[in-house]
Amino acid sequence: MDHIDRASVDLDALFRPERVAVIGASDAEGRPTTLNWRRVAAWAERVGAEAVPVHPRRAVIDGRTAYRSIEDVPGQVDVAIVLIGDVDSVLPGIAAKGVGFVVLFAAGYAETGPDGERRQAELVRSLRAAGVRALGPNTNMNLFEEFRTDLPGRPIALITQSGHQGRPVFQGQELGIRFSHWAPTGNEADLNAAHFVDYFAHEDDTGAIALYLEGFADGTAFRRAARAAARRGVPLVAVKVGRTELGRSWAMSHTGHLAGADDVASAVMRQYGIARVDGLDELLDTAALFARAGDPPHAGVCVYAISGGTSAHMADLLGAAGIDLPELSAETVTALRQWIPDYLRVSNPVDNGGHPVGDWRGRRILETILADPAVGILVVPITGAFPPMSDTLVADLVAVAETTDKPICVVWGSPSGTEDAYRRMLLGSRLPVFRTFGNCVAAIRALADHLDFRERAHELPAVPDPPPALAGPGRQLTGSTPSACWPRTASRSRGTHCARAPTRRPARSTTRAVRSSSRRSSTGWPTSPSTGWSGSGSPTRPRAGPSWPTSSGSSRTCRAASWPASW
Amino acid sequence: MDHIDRASVDLDALFRPERVAVIGASDAEGRPTTLNWRRVAAWAERVGAEAVPVHPRRAVIDGRTAYRSIEDVPGQVDVAIVLIGDVDSVLPGIAAKGVGFVVLFAAGYAETGPDGERRQAELVRSLRAAGVRALGPNTNMNLFEEFRTDLPGRPIALITQSGHQGRPVFQGQELGIRFSHWAPTGNEADLNAAHFVDYFAHEDDTGAIALYLEGFADGTAFRRAARAAARRGVPLVAVKVGRTELGRSWAMSHTGHLAGADDVASAVMRQYGIARVDGLDELLDTAALFARAGDPPHAGVCVYAISGGTSAHMADLLGAAGIDLPELSAETVTALRQWIPDYLRVSNPVDNGGHPVGDWRGRRILETILADPAVGILVVPITGAFPPMSDTLVADLVAVAETTDKPICVVWGSPSGTEDAYRRMLLGSRLPVFRTFGNCVAAIRALADHLDFRERAHELPAVPDPPPALAGPGRQLTGSTPSACWPRTASRSRGTHCARAPTRRPARSTTRAVRSSSRRSSTGWPTSPSTGWSGSGSPTRPRAGPSWPTSSGSSRTCRAASWPASW
Repeated sequence: MDHIDRASVDLDALFRPERVAVIGASDAEGRPTTLNWRRVAAWAERVGAEAVPVHPRRAVIDGRTAYRSIEDVPGQVDVAIVLIGDVDSVLPGIAAKGVGFVVLFAAGYAETGPDGERRQAELVRSLRAAGVRALGPNTNMNLFEEFRTDLPGRPIALITQSGHQGRPVFQGQELGIRFSHWAPTGNEADLNAAHFVDYFAHEDDTGAIALYLEGFADGTAFRRAARAAARRGVPLVAVKVGRTELGRSWAMSHTGHLAGADDVASAVMRQYGIARVDGLDELLDTAALFARAGDPPHAGVCVYAISGGTSAHMADLLGAAGIDLPELSAETVTALRQWIPDYLRVSNPVDNGGHPVGDWRGRRILETILADPAVGILVVPITGAFPPMSDTLVADLVAVAETTDKPICVVWGSPSGTEDAYRRMLLGSRLPVFRTFGNCVAAIRALADHLDFRERAHELPAVPDPPPALAGPGRQLTGSTPSACWPRTASRSRGTHCARAPTRRPARSTTRAVRSSSRRSSTGWPTSPSTGWSGSGSPTRPRAGPSWPTSSGSSRTCRAASWPASW
Repeated sequence: MDHIDRASVDLDALFRPERVAVIGASDAEGRPTTLNWRRVAAWAERVGAEAVPVHPRRAVIDGRTAYRSIEDVPGQVDVAIVLIGDVDSVLPGIAAKGVGFVVLFAAGYAETGPDGERRQAELVRSLRAAGVRALGPNTNMNLFEEFRTDLPGRPIALITQSGHQGRPVFQGQELGIRFSHWAPTGNEADLNAAHFVDYFAHEDDTGAIALYLEGFADGTAFRRAARAAARRGVPLVAVKVGRTELGRSWAMSHTGHLAGADDVASAVMRQYGIARVDGLDELLDTAALFARAGDPPHAGVCVYAISGGTSAHMADLLGAAGIDLPELSAETVTALRQWIPDYLRVSNPVDNGGHPVGDWRGRRILETILADPAVGILVVPITGAFPPMSDTLVADLVAVAETTDKPICVVWGSPSGTEDAYRRMLLGSRLPVFRTFGNCVAAIRALADHLDFRERAHELPAVPDPPPALAGPGRQLTGSTPSACWPRTASRSRGTHCARAPTRRPARSTTRAVRSSSRRSSTGWPTSPSTGWSGSGSPTRPRAGPSWPTSSGSSRTCRAASWPASW
């Protein structure tokens, strides 16, 4: 048996619920809970779900009937979103209602130190007793963002252990890059990055999965999920903090993550074909190339530029990254010579000298290059904005892209980025667009690696269970009979996931237990439950403990109490 | 005797002329020569010079008296800008007039192959006979850009062997980054990058010199100029093509540059404290940090963020680049604890958790950090745009920057960059601003290296003459008695340059001779005259040969003839 779904739980009811209850909803203007309730309500409307407010003293919120407790809500509830800090007070009702998933916004758990670790351990026991799967605690509202459906191409699915660090990746939407989901995994007391990798990899249209990681909650589960993605041809791109002792130390103090030995993390990422990048900008750019590249026949790169200087520079950087440029065929060269004078080199890079961009020849040259079997990927660095030539070139590129399956990577090098050719034409197109030569080269290197890796992904062996000494508590949360605990997660069918029962066994550990477990491990592949900062743009998080905020609190006190503990 | 000024010629009369003659000026709408004449005329007005049109058949151009030849122009002419292709036909008049500098826009020389190499060799002989120093041929109009004088801080001086590749660096002006000059050195038949490095290094306010290089026309001269800059504390940043065989091959075919062994180039750059970067975006960002950093006491970096995730990520990347973060003093930590809760780390990075940014504490925290003697540079990564918090933080940063000499580096991580806090507040300030963690880290690494290098720059030994076998023809242009040839270059006084006679000896070589000379060289430090593409945004370059374009030519023929040969 393939153990891929050891890491799996069917998250359909979380992402596509029929009814969600928002515990702690409010419509008092200026309250964080009002903002968050309305965000959930708007999201529910987009995904075709009913959002129901729950409040102990309000009968109507924003014109909708509010219920005193979740048990009073009529009908089945798929997801309970808990905006209040006192999670314990509402868990029994959630359990009694048979809710499948809770989203725990509250902070004040393992990320705050020993007391918080104890609180989180108690929470995990309560969750287990309630038979409910949890996102969080210390997660945020990023799951309920507005995912634009008007954008071209396959989407990126985003997973971040820090909501704040995920923000500039998700903001790629403003550049026209499509996103399907954002899973802010927070403290990962139960559901962790591996569950979401596996789920997103099995969605039909996922173009790439982008991850911001500080540590791995369960190395075995992560590898299994990565293997499943690899076998389905879904590329993964990740920022993984922990290259240095300083970074590892901060990952620990920030989110309780054991970042692990960095060379082990790198080796595992290489083994599973995960592109590791350093910057969030690279994470966005590389994931976007994966999502938009389609299925190029091979990684043969042709560089096309209007300047020999640009050609020289780009060829040099690609070469330094190990990307060799194939010679174009004799037929292609002969054809290009009709339009490009003899003193310019046309293979490879193709340097057109500028002229032909201005008229019909520009389009013919592009078509001729793309027809060459040696070309799998076309790279067009546009060093600076210099209208009207750059505008004409961009128009040709956008038009030609509609006629080919080969990706055309464009670098818009102007630092300003306010130009119409960039903002309207390029960002409005389905082309992979970069702002720097460096990010383009790094993304193409990752794509070439992925195409190579894809050929042998089916050879990846199944991931064995770790030896008992390394079996971290993160994989033992529910014991050996999880199906009794998770009655609802297999009840919603979705493509290849339809028959999958939730088999992950959540942990009963405290972070402290994990740390000592990890210290015993010599693999450098820690198995800790993670605790992740996950503040959003509007930090409105309650702290664990007595909750139901009253309107009589001073605004400063109220605000302080609702701020995230660990950004 | 120190041989620094072996590479020097006083370029004052080129950059600050009293009168310039534009040979080939036109006011016929739509003509490239019209565009270029008007660009020069506008520039002349800005620098307080008189621009005089020269045309064989026109009496008035744009309302100004035009002269049939340069010899007819009344008074002294400092610079002749030759827009026509037939340079030979006007050189005798330029010589007879005693003009100090010519700017040769014409292409069709060494960059086009053997015939062009012969043409360039003949041109060099003619220049020598005329006793005039030349920028070009195959240079462009970048010297005559509009350099904004309303921007804060010390300016960047830009030197590029390719005008096109310099464009996105100079476009940094659109981001509020100040530039003083742009020297597009073109084919470098006479004046080369070394002359401009030396000149800019001796200007009083140069904040940094940014270079885009494909090769070195004269390695000895370049090292002397770099040494002069080092001793004056002026930082150099360079992109140098030629990391790979492919790049070197293209540098040769593009501009005839011998890129040389890359490890030798790197070693020389390290020796002279030149920051080597790969991308044009890094070139701009690093030069801008140098120009704006002022004179920090040391390179002790403190990271300040509103998120532990951001702190962890930035600390990790800085650490991976070898930048260790010093502990803040006990007094600083005690002060910070007044405003930042105990469960957040405050040394170092300082993680404020978000809260204090929203009120008066944000400013106090910044002031406290900057007052710590361990802090030489403050780094504030703003991961994503999340108003109003990010706006408040930016306002505090801009205000505090006015009270300190320590540089405050801000990363605006939002990929869109359309936000008001970025466009208006940050770009309108004097802060060094980055768009990616990566570029910020690279620039800080370069700044730390520069501060370290500056301490020992005075120990750099004088650069000896190369052994005769390596004495490239690029240093023998005028023979041993140059002062007789260059009567005017010392006639304009300018600060430390005032008494410097032009001592560079221009070459009599052809590129072919240079190549064989270089092949003899075992130093990997070629001494060729360079030939550089230098197309501008509006490629309007005449080709060498019969010129004086007539209005009867067809527009296509006319356009083709005026296009740059090698972009």
